[in-house]
Amino acid sequence: MIENIGFLAAALTTFSFLPQAVLTLRTRKTDEISLIMYLMLNLGIMCWLAYGWVQDDLALILANSVTLLFSVPILLVKCSNKLAGRE
Amino acid sequence: MIENIGFLAAALTTFSFLPQAVLTLRTRKTDEISLIMYLMLNLGIMCWLAYGWVQDDLALILANSVTLLFSVPILLVKCSNKLAGRE
Repeated sequence: MIENIGFLAAALTTFSFLPQAVLTLRTRKTDEISLIMYLMLNLGIMCWLAYGWVQDDLALILANSVTLLFSVPILLVKCSNKLAGRE
Repeated sequence: MIENIGFLAAALTTFSFLPQAVLTLRTRKTDEISLIMYLMLNLGIMCWLAYGWVQDDLALILANSVTLLFSVPILLVKCSNKLAGRE
C-alpha cells in the first residue's frame, strides 16, 4: 500500500514537467518562467543522476532521467528567448 | 563525498521553486505556467510527504515540506488567475 503511494508520488512529480514542456515548446513563451528555477532544477537533477549512478540506485536514475528529458527543453527555450533578446 | 552530491541535489531541486514562487507572486502573471504541471507537482509532493511520514523518513518530510511551501503559492496564483478569467 505505502509503496504504491511512493510510486504515485514519483510518477506525479516526475511527469508533472511534461505538460509544462509541451506548453513551453508549443508557445515558445517563457517570460513568466524563472530562469534561475530551471538552472537550479536541471543542475539538481544532474546531481541526483550522479548520486544515483554512484549508489547504483536504478529508481533514482530512471526518475531523474525522465525528469531531465522534460526540464532541459524548458530551459533551452528560456535561454534561447533570453539570448535572442525576446524578453 | 557522494553524500555531499546527494545533499547538493536535494538542496538544488528543493530550492529551485523559490525563484519561481518569488517571480510569480511579484508579477502575478501565470499564462505561460502550466496548471496541470502544478496540480500534478503539488499532489505528488503531498504523496511524498505521506510516504515520508509512514516510512519515518525525516529527509523526505523536510525536503518536501519546503518544496510545498514554494509550489503551493504558484498553484494558488495560477488558480486565482484562471478563476478570475484573467487568462
